[in-house]
Amino acid sequence: MEQNMMLELKSILQAQNQGNLNELIGDLQPFDIAAMVSEVDTEEQLTFFFLVPTSLGAEILEYLEPELQYKILLRMKEQYKSDLLNEMSSDTIVNLLLSVHPNQAKKLMDYLPDDYRLKINTLMNYEPNTAGRLATIDYVGARIHWTVEHTLAHIRKVGHEAEIVSYIYVVDKNGELVGVVSLKDIILAKEGTVLEDIIQGEPISVSVYVHQQEAAAVLSKYDLVAIPVVTHNQRMIGILTVDDLIDVIHEEATEDFQKLGGSQPLTDPYFKNSIWSIYRKRIGWLLILFVAEAYTGTVLRHYEDTLSEQIALAFFVPLLIGTGGNTGSQTVTTLVRAMAVGEVEFKDIFKVFRKEVSTGFFLGLTMGTVALIRAFFLGVDFNVGAVVAISALFIVIWASMVAAVLPMILNKLKVDPAIVSGPFITTLVDGTGLILYFTVAKILLHL
Amino acid sequence: MEQNMMLELKSILQAQNQGNLNELIGDLQPFDIAAMVSEVDTEEQLTFFFLVPTSLGAEILEYLEPELQYKILLRMKEQYKSDLLNEMSSDTIVNLLLSVHPNQAKKLMDYLPDDYRLKINTLMNYEPNTAGRLATIDYVGARIHWTVEHTLAHIRKVGHEAEIVSYIYVVDKNGELVGVVSLKDIILAKEGTVLEDIIQGEPISVSVYVHQQEAAAVLSKYDLVAIPVVTHNQRMIGILTVDDLIDVIHEEATEDFQKLGGSQPLTDPYFKNSIWSIYRKRIGWLLILFVAEAYTGTVLRHYEDTLSEQIALAFFVPLLIGTGGNTGSQTVTTLVRAMAVGEVEFKDIFKVFRKEVSTGFFLGLTMGTVALIRAFFLGVDFNVGAVVAISALFIVIWASMVAAVLPMILNKLKVDPAIVSGPFITTLVDGTGLILYFTVAKILLHL
Repeated sequence: MEQNMMLELKSILQAQNQGNLNELIGDLQPFDIAAMVSEVDTEEQLTFFFLVPTSLGAEILEYLEPELQYKILLRMKEQYKSDLLNEMSSDTIVNLLLSVHPNQAKKLMDYLPDDYRLKINTLMNYEPNTAGRLATIDYVGARIHWTVEHTLAHIRKVGHEAEIVSYIYVVDKNGELVGVVSLKDIILAKEGTVLEDIIQGEPISVSVYVHQQEAAAVLSKYDLVAIPVVTHNQRMIGILTVDDLIDVIHEEATEDFQKLGGSQPLTDPYFKNSIWSIYRKRIGWLLILFVAEAYTGTVLRHYEDTLSEQIALAFFVPLLIGTGGNTGSQTVTTLVRAMAVGEVEFKDIFKVFRKEVSTGFFLGLTMGTVALIRAFFLGVDFNVGAVVAISALFIVIWASMVAAVLPMILNKLKVDPAIVSGPFITTLVDGTGLILYFTVAKILLHL
Repeated sequence: MEQNMMLELKSILQAQNQGNLNELIGDLQPFDIAAMVSEVDTEEQLTFFFLVPTSLGAEILEYLEPELQYKILLRMKEQYKSDLLNEMSSDTIVNLLLSVHPNQAKKLMDYLPDDYRLKINTLMNYEPNTAGRLATIDYVGARIHWTVEHTLAHIRKVGHEAEIVSYIYVVDKNGELVGVVSLKDIILAKEGTVLEDIIQGEPISVSVYVHQQEAAAVLSKYDLVAIPVVTHNQRMIGILTVDDLIDVIHEEATEDFQKLGGSQPLTDPYFKNSIWSIYRKRIGWLLILFVAEAYTGTVLRHYEDTLSEQIALAFFVPLLIGTGGNTGSQTVTTLVRAMAVGEVEFKDIFKVFRKEVSTGFFLGLTMGTVALIRAFFLGVDFNVGAVVAISALFIVIWASMVAAVLPMILNKLKVDPAIVSGPFITTLVDGTGLILYFTVAKILLHL
């Protein structure tokens, strides 16, 4: 089916048949059309954008990768290039301009009207991953003394260029944001109502400098579809729309996953990364963890005599430190995520500590018991079994404590708590767990 | 500041002063008002809902927990109770009714009009976490032959009860969804335009039975603000709104985090879980992993003679299996997340395998080299150092292979790949890594 549609699209484009093209894509969504267009040859792509109306073309172009956007725009006829660029949303243009070489970006910007180019330039100068960089300037503004009829007429005039019109942003003569009105409220308001009377409360906004993740949190807290972005003196520079912020939520969660797995996050989707780039993201932490883990060798050599006398102690080394690592990993992933979504904060540290240590105590009792059973079945000395069981209890409690406290303290120190990954906590518990184990052994076995 | 506002709110409510209340909350957003209301006593809460307009009251009530919603509604005067319930959005009502005892739910439902009660009942019967259960019926429908003026008049009549009016859903006389029109398109359309002419393509919709996560993926793919939910014969039963689906995205990511950390996901926010409930979510996997890890004891006992002869081999056990576990954990978290967001599918298994094994090879070479250096500094025999280095290479490649293939196969078998947690892969690599280590040792050291 899909294969057939692709073949049909290609033959229509080769024949440059506009009627058939409209019929083929008439029932499809821009996203799906974009997926098909990205699969045909460059020549066919140019024909495609030549045949479709500019507004649909711009919408489809927005779903393509910046590299492809540039390749297509570059080869397009001059007039059409400028039309398409002007129909694209400003955040897509910013992303495109930042993805190509500065010289190429400069040439593209010549196709934009002066005031628009100025605004785009401002957005491009904000730091990556901030609200300012992600904002789009394609919103509808209004004045506080306008009536709903006047506002509707204004929306009819400028609305087709706006990314969303669900909210109208009310600014004063200095461009300061003074309120937000939903299109719903405008439609439902009685004739002659002035915007001032239907603005609800202080407008929710974010500063251009806040991190995109924080902006997403504000949007989701207040159940908004877009959020205005303002400078330090409340001047409105644009809006963040929910579709972009959903992408942010996905990206940030993906980054946290990779960090918790013990590697630096990949900046691109998985398959876009070369072996070398994946290697670089992983080797750093592997080496750091190796150095930390190397300490276990020192601990074991220190207890070489104890080990030689009671070689059975060695059998339980992976089991005990593994169990400690598992407990720590459970705690740390739960807490790092709870902090990321704002369920847990630093002020809760004692509450968290009590909860985790209590849970760890009961988990430790259980694991100690099964460790005793395991020792019995492995046929080692009862005393060694007792050492293993008691060590299991201590190691599980210890792992819970470390995994509860460490990410919270790092968060307080403004270090991303997600660096306390599963591997990190596992490594930390390995060396310290061994010391616990051999200390218990020396005391109980009088070695 | 906030403390002051709380005290002021309490004193206003005790004095039942409507004017002062309006002044205090006039500039606040419903979410923030709800946060304050949830902090005062029940008597004060009742006064609050008595003093504010029904529509604002319903909006604030929606942000409260179902238990609190019920407590407040229960004690409210009869007439006001029914007004408030009818203003609440249907998905909130469904959630409330499912959170209380069936008898209590039945009593509450008596306050709803007959046809509304019927619809609510239908939604309640869908499985948890499906699109049907999460849907709200408070949307605006229209007919395909309506003009934009007629549609606007209809929106003005029914829009105040709708959760969103950004999209109007066009249905035929059987209630089948035939198209979607955005309010923007209606506003921008020329006078007299019929809806049929501004419907864009086939409407995107999801079935009542799809999992909420899938619905969220569709919404985010097409950059929508709401998505219609239909039965198997395309009858529209409601919509899913972006704010609810953002909550779904957060919840599902949180669940995956906890699974990857090696525990069953907590169903409630962290602090709402008792020690006992956290214990139960964690102990299952800890025990399973313990049993799997216990195998390392068998392996080590099997090589007891080798170990006794060359006790230095024991020094590197935690280091080698730790490094294997870390590598596996890096790979598995990256892949499980890439599968969750749809970047990687089962058909990519060979591509993933090649990529991970190649990366693993280079990571292994690096780790083997540093292992050799570590062995040198620990002052062990050069031959033992060589064994450690070669084992490190093999173990890292092996861990990459297992971590690449296992989650993909599980996904194919319809098992959630997130159960291949960091601890799971670590445990699996521990036992098998030891066998690799001692096999290399026996061959190279002729033990």
